[in-house]
Amino acid sequence: MNSNTPTDITFSFRGFAQRGGNTADHSDGWGIAFFEDKGLRHFVDHQRAADSPIAELIRHYPIKSQNVIAHIRKATQGSVSLQNCHPFVRELWGRYWVFAHNGDLKEFRPRLHAHFHPVGNTDSEHVFCWLLQELAKSHAGMPSVMELTRTLRELAPRIAAHGTFNFLLSNGEALWAHASTQLYRLQRRHPFAVAQLCDEDLCIDFAPLTTASDRVLLLATEPLTVNEDWKAFGSGELKVFTGGQEAL
Amino acid sequence: MNSNTPTDITFSFRGFAQRGGNTADHSDGWGIAFFEDKGLRHFVDHQRAADSPIAELIRHYPIKSQNVIAHIRKATQGSVSLQNCHPFVRELWGRYWVFAHNGDLKEFRPRLHAHFHPVGNTDSEHVFCWLLQELAKSHAGMPSVMELTRTLRELAPRIAAHGTFNFLLSNGEALWAHASTQLYRLQRRHPFAVAQLCDEDLCIDFAPLTTASDRVLLLATEPLTVNEDWKAFGSGELKVFTGGQEAL
Repeated sequence: MNSNTPTDITFSFRGFAQRGGNTADHSDGWGIAFFEDKGLRHFVDHQRAADSPIAELIRHYPIKSQNVIAHIRKATQGSVSLQNCHPFVRELWGRYWVFAHNGDLKEFRPRLHAHFHPVGNTDSEHVFCWLLQELAKSHAGMPSVMELTRTLRELAPRIAAHGTFNFLLSNGEALWAHASTQLYRLQRRHPFAVAQLCDEDLCIDFAPLTTASDRVLLLATEPLTVNEDWKAFGSGELKVFTGGQEAL
Repeated sequence: MNSNTPTDITFSFRGFAQRGGNTADHSDGWGIAFFEDKGLRHFVDHQRAADSPIAELIRHYPIKSQNVIAHIRKATQGSVSLQNCHPFVRELWGRYWVFAHNGDLKEFRPRLHAHFHPVGNTDSEHVFCWLLQELAKSHAGMPSVMELTRTLRELAPRIAAHGTFNFLLSNGEALWAHASTQLYRLQRRHPFAVAQLCDEDLCIDFAPLTTASDRVLLLATEPLTVNEDWKAFGSGELKVFTGGQEAL
């Protein structure tokens, strides 16, 4: 989620968490990270999102943020353990970076010769460390969002050549999304309407909860609602979002 | 807390969290980090620990860990914001490192010329980044606990010369504690007995909850219980704990 005003994700997370063991078999842990200014709240759990006590807190406690990344894990590589739960977090240039990956990279372990090393043993954390290593080599300090986007557009295809590489990345300033096989986006803006979850029999009317200037961008590998206009990414597309809309 | 068996800290945290706004004026945020193997659960909140919904979860949800670091903040430097809440986390040599500081370092900003940079603006996060920078320069890869202890014993006095520097540091394998002005330790082991909190009218009998081989080491700037034998650190002492006891 990326938005132009601090927004809570309790409604979306209700449906999303059902996929962690109920409506889908992503039962090998989950995680979520909320930026608040440059600060970060990071929750990971190796229990199923469908019935984790921490997921229950997230469903009911409206943490407001402009950049949120959540993930439910179906282990393809790496054991079921806390250190293998996405999203992963590292610091670079005095900002936290958060990364979640959907997919599977076969026998791809690019060389890590700098200062980022995986704690767990997933392909995902390994390529996140590689991405940060290459960003750090490409820029002496924090570049602009558009410069970072150009660098990421060079780096992503080098990874995507080795398997499925749908990912979300944020530093709290922008949210980058790359599709290799499947990723959808939805923008909610004025006039806000009623949304109906895919994974649970629940509707919400956003109209009384929002103002005319609010913009909220949602990204998911499968649409989260049945009655809204989710748009599919093309294969190989990398987009960047700030303030609830695509940054061009 | 450092222990030889996964242990929950719900009892200690109940009393500790009262100091975040009720029995003491450490009201400017709080945080706690639990290692589980190499993985980490990290919770920070800029609300008072005494009434934060996340602190409420921690009080009631028994997360079991062998290394836990908690902190309640009374802001001396840096704004009240999420990015300034302790404990701070970074990755080095493929392990997470967690750091919490009690004290105040006046006008001390050692030069950060490597790969760790503060996200917030506290003296504490700055010196944590410096400590990791110096550890990284001193060792090519993860050294033994005792080698790390020797390096930390060289580094800590260089910081402590500039102000109050009580700190806790853990990489999930060991817990290091340094006292500059005040730090207490308590070892609980067989035969376990009843403990009475200082900050709340609550007792617990650990005997039925433990086994004869359990060892739990607690560290705090003020004793957490009224009826146990808390020992004060000497000024300038740096000790390291593994498996619920001092590693010699």
